Amino acid sequence: MPHIALPPDLPGIVSGFAFRPETAKPMRELAEILLRGPNTLTSAEREMIAALVSSRNDCHFCQASHTAAAAHHQHGDYSVVNAVKHDYESAPISPKLRALLTIAARVQEGGRHVTAADVERARAEGATDREIHDTVLIAASFSMFNRYVDGLATLTPKDDAAYDAMGQRMAREGYVNRNL
Amino acid sequence: MPHIALPPDLPGIVSGFAFRPETAKPMRELAEILLRGPNTLTSAEREMIAALVSSRNDCHFCQASHTAAAAHHQHGDYSVVNAVKHDYESAPISPKLRALLTIAARVQEGGRHVTAADVERARAEGATDREIHDTVLIAASFSMFNRYVDGLATLTPKDDAAYDAMGQRMAREGYVNRNL
Repeated sequence: MPHIALPPDLPGIVSGFAFRPETAKPMRELAEILLRGPNTLTSAEREMIAALVSSRNDCHFCQASHTAAAAHHQHGDYSVVNAVKHDYESAPISPKLRALLTIAARVQEGGRHVTAADVERARAEGATDREIHDTVLIAASFSMFNRYVDGLATLTPKDDAAYDAMGQRMAREGYVNRNL
Repeated sequence: MPHIALPPDLPGIVSGFAFRPETAKPMRELAEILLRGPNTLTSAEREMIAALVSSRNDCHFCQASHTAAAAHHQHGDYSVVNAVKHDYESAPISPKLRALLTIAARVQEGGRHVTAADVERARAEGATDREIHDTVLIAASFSMFNRYVDGLATLTPKDDAAYDAMGQRMAREGYVNRNL
């Protein structure tokens, strides 16, 4: 049961957004820019960063919905994002994304955990400063979104099909002009 | 030295904001609403929540600047915010703020750490659902801001006077229409 009187029947972050539309607006905009805005990283790659961080924060709503969004940016194929969450070092992804996921995993633990060697590895694999910046900020922002969702104990659907539908809408329609 | 080529001579989060103005905009707006927008919690109280979370995340730039902002919302008096960072249970603050700081400290550890008993205590001390919501979100957002600042290894001034001047501007002018 949610810790406060959130609008009933709305799942996860959607209920927090409905409770406080003033703060929802910049949070939605930030997600849209980071995950779907113009970028040399694909939306699938960026959603995988979000899914990994959410998984490590044990936020079921966020990890399941962003896993589904990543899959729907890859024709509904869950295999790559599932491999990333399980062990990104052995997942079938580019060496660059692997290095960026390492940075994201450090940020999940704390900003000071990122080392010069982590950044050097990403750069050696072809990552730009902008890609490194956005990886840090995606990981940092999901450190916020995850805590918001679970800190309020929002409603967490159990049904995988609910997240699949949610992720499909997130991948197609994004975060600003709709209900998620 | 910063991990990426941030604009030189700008401290902390200001350098990240200058590097990527697109993401700076919603982040500045979120800080403004949460810390200075209309609220039944004073800005001093909200800045103390920000300072406590930043202190526990060991983010020197954020904790020093928001400590100064809290002080400048209290006529430049640092004693209360310093006591809060040292041990909020014995600090000279209201029982309600003490209960909200407990919730913020849980969120800093992770969203799932907030218990029904924590929320019940806050409510018993007179906290509203909106105040509990905003406490969770301030703590969650500083889990982002702190990781952004340190995950990029931004420039961190050592001089206390720099933070005092910064906090004074933050308290007076806010987060949207200026350089911090």
